[in-house]
Amino acid sequence: MPLTEADIQVQLSRRRPGQSDLTTPRDEKDKVTILSGTEKGYTLGTPIAMTVANQDQRPHDYGEMDYYPRPSHADWTYLQKYGIKASSGGGRSSARETIGRVAAAGIAEKYLQLTHNVEIVAFVASIGNVSMEPMTGYGTPEEEPAWLARWNKWWKTLKTVTRKDVDSNEVRCPDTQIAGRMRERIVAARDAHDSVGGTVVCVIRNVPAGLGEPCFDKLEAKLAHAMLSIPATKGFEIGSGFAGTDIPGHVHNDPFILRDGRMGTATNFSGGVQGGITNGEDIYFKVAFKPAATIGQAQATATYEGVDGTLAAKGRHDPSVLPRAVPIVESMAALVIMDALLQQLGRQGARALLPEDSNIPGVLVGKPPKQLQSEVVATEVKQADGTHIIDVVKP
Amino acid sequence: MPLTEADIQVQLSRRRPGQSDLTTPRDEKDKVTILSGTEKGYTLGTPIAMTVANQDQRPHDYGEMDYYPRPSHADWTYLQKYGIKASSGGGRSSARETIGRVAAAGIAEKYLQLTHNVEIVAFVASIGNVSMEPMTGYGTPEEEPAWLARWNKWWKTLKTVTRKDVDSNEVRCPDTQIAGRMRERIVAARDAHDSVGGTVVCVIRNVPAGLGEPCFDKLEAKLAHAMLSIPATKGFEIGSGFAGTDIPGHVHNDPFILRDGRMGTATNFSGGVQGGITNGEDIYFKVAFKPAATIGQAQATATYEGVDGTLAAKGRHDPSVLPRAVPIVESMAALVIMDALLQQLGRQGARALLPEDSNIPGVLVGKPPKQLQSEVVATEVKQADGTHIIDVVKP
Amino acid sequence: MPLTEADIQVQLSRRRPGQSDLTTPRDEKDKVTILSGTEKGYTLGTPIAMTVANQDQRPHDYGEMDYYPRPSHADWTYLQKYGIKASSGGGRSSARETIGRVAAAGIAEKYLQLTHNVEIVAFVASIGNVSMEPMTGYGTPEEEPAWLARWNKWWKTLKTVTRKDVDSNEVRCPDTQIAGRMRERIVAARDAHDSVGGTVVCVIRNVPAGLGEPCFDKLEAKLAHAMLSIPATKGFEIGSGFAGTDIPGHVHNDPFILRDGRMGTATNFSGGVQGGITNGEDIYFKVAFKPAATIGQAQATATYEGVDGTLAAKGRHDPSVLPRAVPIVESMAALVIMDALLQQLGRQGARALLPEDSNIPGVLVGKPPKQLQSEVVATEVKQADGTHIIDVVKP
Amino acid sequence: MPLTEADIQVQLSRRRPGQSDLTTPRDEKDKVTILSGTEKGYTLGTPIAMTVANQDQRPHDYGEMDYYPRPSHADWTYLQKYGIKASSGGGRSSARETIGRVAAAGIAEKYLQLTHNVEIVAFVASIGNVSMEPMTGYGTPEEEPAWLARWNKWWKTLKTVTRKDVDSNEVRCPDTQIAGRMRERIVAARDAHDSVGGTVVCVIRNVPAGLGEPCFDKLEAKLAHAMLSIPATKGFEIGSGFAGTDIPGHVHNDPFILRDGRMGTATNFSGGVQGGITNGEDIYFKVAFKPAATIGQAQATATYEGVDGTLAAKGRHDPSVLPRAVPIVESMAALVIMDALLQQLGRQGARALLPEDSNIPGVLVGKPPKQLQSEVVATEVKQADGTHIIDVVKP
Repeated sequence: MPLTEADIQVQLSRRRPGQSDLTTPRDEKDKVTILSGTEKGYTLGTPIAMTVANQDQRPHDYGEMDYYPRPSHADWTYLQKYGIKASSGGGRSSARETIGRVAAAGIAEKYLQLTHNVEIVAFVASIGNVSMEPMTGYGTPEEEPAWLARWNKWWKTLKTVTRKDVDSNEVRCPDTQIAGRMRERIVAARDAHDSVGGTVVCVIRNVPAGLGEPCFDKLEAKLAHAMLSIPATKGFEIGSGFAGTDIPGHVHNDPFILRDGRMGTATNFSGGVQGGITNGEDIYFKVAFKPAATIGQAQATATYEGVDGTLAAKGRHDPSVLPRAVPIVESMAALVIMDALLQQLGRQGARALLPEDSNIPGVLVGKPPKQLQSEVVATEVKQADGTHIIDVVKP
Repeated sequence: MPLTEADIQVQLSRRRPGQSDLTTPRDEKDKVTILSGTEKGYTLGTPIAMTVANQDQRPHDYGEMDYYPRPSHADWTYLQKYGIKASSGGGRSSARETIGRVAAAGIAEKYLQLTHNVEIVAFVASIGNVSMEPMTGYGTPEEEPAWLARWNKWWKTLKTVTRKDVDSNEVRCPDTQIAGRMRERIVAARDAHDSVGGTVVCVIRNVPAGLGEPCFDKLEAKLAHAMLSIPATKGFEIGSGFAGTDIPGHVHNDPFILRDGRMGTATNFSGGVQGGITNGEDIYFKVAFKPAATIGQAQATATYEGVDGTLAAKGRHDPSVLPRAVPIVESMAALVIMDALLQQLGRQGARALLPEDSNIPGVLVGKPPKQLQSEVVATEVKQADGTHIIDVVKP
Repeated sequence: MPLTEADIQVQLSRRRPGQSDLTTPRDEKDKVTILSGTEKGYTLGTPIAMTVANQDQRPHDYGEMDYYPRPSHADWTYLQKYGIKASSGGGRSSARETIGRVAAAGIAEKYLQLTHNVEIVAFVASIGNVSMEPMTGYGTPEEEPAWLARWNKWWKTLKTVTRKDVDSNEVRCPDTQIAGRMRERIVAARDAHDSVGGTVVCVIRNVPAGLGEPCFDKLEAKLAHAMLSIPATKGFEIGSGFAGTDIPGHVHNDPFILRDGRMGTATNFSGGVQGGITNGEDIYFKVAFKPAATIGQAQATATYEGVDGTLAAKGRHDPSVLPRAVPIVESMAALVIMDALLQQLGRQGARALLPEDSNIPGVLVGKPPKQLQSEVVATEVKQADGTHIIDVVKP
Repeated sequence: MPLTEADIQVQLSRRRPGQSDLTTPRDEKDKVTILSGTEKGYTLGTPIAMTVANQDQRPHDYGEMDYYPRPSHADWTYLQKYGIKASSGGGRSSARETIGRVAAAGIAEKYLQLTHNVEIVAFVASIGNVSMEPMTGYGTPEEEPAWLARWNKWWKTLKTVTRKDVDSNEVRCPDTQIAGRMRERIVAARDAHDSVGGTVVCVIRNVPAGLGEPCFDKLEAKLAHAMLSIPATKGFEIGSGFAGTDIPGHVHNDPFILRDGRMGTATNFSGGVQGGITNGEDIYFKVAFKPAATIGQAQATATYEGVDGTLAAKGRHDPSVLPRAVPIVESMAALVIMDALLQQLGRQGARALLPEDSNIPGVLVGKPPKQLQSEVVATEVKQADGTHIIDVVKP
């Protein structure tokens, strides 16, 4: 497929530090170079190697920080694991490691866009307790209509939000009013030499049905794996998520419906995945990021040998990683979808080569005998807000 | 290692349906037989094959259910994926598939127990909106002490809860008072031919430091993968999880402390994992289960060809899968820890064979030069409730 | 795809012991049962589990043989590896393990036959020094015509040999005259309570071009891996093999030629693979089997603790494993081709989804500019024996 | 472990072109740089990235060679596989790709040497029909003593040959007399604008017993895979190899013997591997290399579209790849042994953690009951030439 460095650079630049006063002041250029695997702007099928040079390699002065394990960092666990650690403490546990993920995902995203018009849009949904998404619990049957209306509004947001909306402000929250309050929360943390966490929501549109493996490699399992592999993440939920645990089964089930000539579901509490396999509806999920471990305040800790002390980070740090996490979440999502698509394409390709078989029993391919075919026409009703309600009438 | 079928059977029996009036009335025996890989009660190092015969294989009458894709089941997505489906709809997407996981985990659990005294205890933490864990958000600095006290109480529960506590009632919630209210919630769902979701919390104790790979296969990523591969799960969080997004960084960081002669952390918002690698503290996480998709009520759906209709499940079904999910969550946790341990043992074994090297610079192994070694003694304070507070005083 | 036990049984029965007086007298039925993954004679896309029950499980009397490591068997190395061994010595190192391979390959073979009409035919090419293939070295340029004629005859055999030819005698050598001499050699070994080795040649026809990965997983590397994983194998060669080391480069290179409307090669010293990737020509290779380690003669050996002794096998044994190795070689070949095909189908499927691109430079897709296109017509000459000679004349 | 670029450079320099008038005149420096994974001369446990810059990147003039698929090269099969190819024809199929393998193996070799004193020595055993190893077939029982003496001599060579012996001449054959004749054979090919193949033999000493997996990943299978993945290879044999097919079983079996305080085998037709698992004896194998496909003579071929033509390579080429193949064979061998060792260390580490168990039945660990223990002392006889003969006398 056609591929140049410009394709890769877009998301790398969104990930780069120093984009606003909310992020670390380092001005890393993060410019990618393709070393192999392409010629004259086309991929050759062979491995693609890329490098992003570190523009900020200053000679390291060994100091206190190299001898104290920083609280809630990986310094101590790395030493436990390997019996040795990079002198700088962070080494490969630095979030700078995610550059490689974002670069690789640039290729996946381009392929998904070219072949399926897949759209992946992530945004900051909350900073501390400032949230875009004031969902309350299901409550009582009487409260159901209002509660469902909130979900419908949320699904509409997910269906329409664009990266342009997201990048309209430096917090990367598409609701500009709430973005303002989020900005205040981050600035307060920065001024207190503290940090603050939050959540990123991501929606993936136009994914074909049939992706994801049925048992251990369910699509949601691979998404969860990918998201929890991003530094500083603590949680993942898909579709109705934790809130779904309180929704009655008869409400939570997503009825099938014929829409725009193909099968879909009238609601989407499943989040686009059923039994681990995509159903063609929008996939959406949320990721929790803890407050960054690096803060400017003095903190209690101990040396690697267990002697107490205090440690104050002198380095550069973000008061909140959330705005820069947005392209990383999108990138890991692209890699998961690409991976699942390739697995399914092998299977589909193998099936397509088999000779036609007209003897296959209808019950194995969902072809009901005549007498079971109802004669009702679909009674789907498009709502004013763009959502669909299915009205069930059987003759 | 020594291994017999009895070792495997314990958790299989906890997973079995028909244990109480809250679960499906099928009385499947679920008795395991080891086919290969052991002799005279010892594993031989070669693959272990086990079978659990299905005691309940009744001839299947093809009916409506085989032609309608059941809402929020995998019937339709399987057909999309494979171009064919089992006539029974569920096929391998049936939760009965988890028997294999529980059987395999019996071996892992026995090994972990024999070698590290690892304890894995899961329990039902909520059913619908009935929850053991009424944590509220962090709130203001003034509210911090009360809020921290709730966390300390929770950590104490996690540190001490046993499987015996969990099995003291049929809901598998160790707080018997709340278990009673959970039972009422499940019975209400059953009587309404409906279903209800909930959460399972799991704690893993005595895991050695150093497990988990630093980048894509962080331990939390593998746990998330494993948990989201269990049917009906919608969310995963570790340590402070989603609640942690609102905790200030300086509170959320877990200070290092020398405890019982080895390094530990004074608090445990990290959930026992830092930078993807275990630090030796308790690992704890929570998993969200949606309400079961199979309900007795009539539901709107469409045929595989898009013609509308209604469908009422005639089969047997649980109003809540939560009590039976407990051993499944424990089993997947055991498999993840076992897998990570084997990876680390290979690495440690390789390191152990290298000749001693006295020239390795101190900064690479956390050995500070003399002048950086503080002279304060550790000022850790054991609280009445068993938790630890570190008091930071540097001379 | 359609699949029943009968599809699997064919090769299992060819592998079975007790087929003639040349093989072990055990009459194992080796009847396969499909446990899962099919319904009504069709595969469901989900894993296929099969069992072959052991009809010959006699209670094992522990004796001398359990305490002496049998020479050139795996008894001792298993104990070194696992610290434990099956009491019967062989355990999983018994060649009975290959039943699973043959059963699995039945599915692969059926798929390859249905979709590409792939033909896989193996046969016994030598027993001891009785060989079908009296190739001598390349020799001098003067000897080249006679030498090339022998290769042409050999390629013709490979192009036409069928399983029916192979099964025309119990030795499984398609040249019945030589088969008679092979039989004599095996009978002599049997009568001397000794064993004899030999070679199996295998040809794979109708494999599409493009299979095999270019670097570590070259098709010949995967074939070599598969063949050397069969018990008792000591060597593998593809195409011209060891004999090819003495052929001059200008003779060994296979010229491209347009044949039957598609590109092929005029000779086939490459064995159907170039740069690790199939070129559509016949793949052929040879596998060396050592004399079976189990013999009836008394042999010197030592106990596991190093005390000398003698050991005479009391069990049943084949004087030559070659005839029964034929379906095993075919099976491993089928698995390798299937595996490579699935990998390539994923890649091709991914490429097929990309939009057409008319801008791709000709030099990247082998489209020469006008002035380089020669005007000669192909001067290929079909020989009487069916082989092709390319006559190179450029205007 | 300690690691610097100097450790890697040694074998890279042996692989480099331009070492003598027998190899291509390109003077590539092939200087390696470590980019990541080490600090202050120690590996950090994290991935090690290395680069070797191409010193010889001349602008490519597109010409005839880019439009004709070179005979027995990968140009055409790459195009079939990927639908696109590097304009230079070779792309990643160039043998230059093996630099990465040799660099990686530098790390493995250093580790194996530090921890087990593993020695890996390969050498050129034949060029065309000039061979170090004039083994004839087993022949008759009367000829056995002379034949066995040749094997004993060969085993002695394998036991003692060093890299210094190998590098004593530019052909890399430790027998300098034969090396002279090999040189003549290569020069003849060079002068005829032709190429010539040959064989490389490799011996691996001091490998611990227990490496290699028992079924699909037998050590010989992994070695065969590795060797056949080297460009231009056509065959592999281990131990007695193809010659072993004609040795009677009672001669071919390697009797166990107590030697230097540990179990070994009196002969070594097995080549150090039994049942796929190392037994601690020397591992030796042979690899066949075809004559290089690139020759200076004009050759018949066709365009990618099937139009005939002739092609003469204008580039630089080796008349024989054998001398430079020596470090590549050693490198792949090091990678296979390292890989197998890491797998086994994980298993051994896991076993070592289990508590002692005194109840394990003797028959599972090769501990015979008293009455079976013979009282003969070992009757091994050291021969004048250093080999061992076991004399079997049981009281």
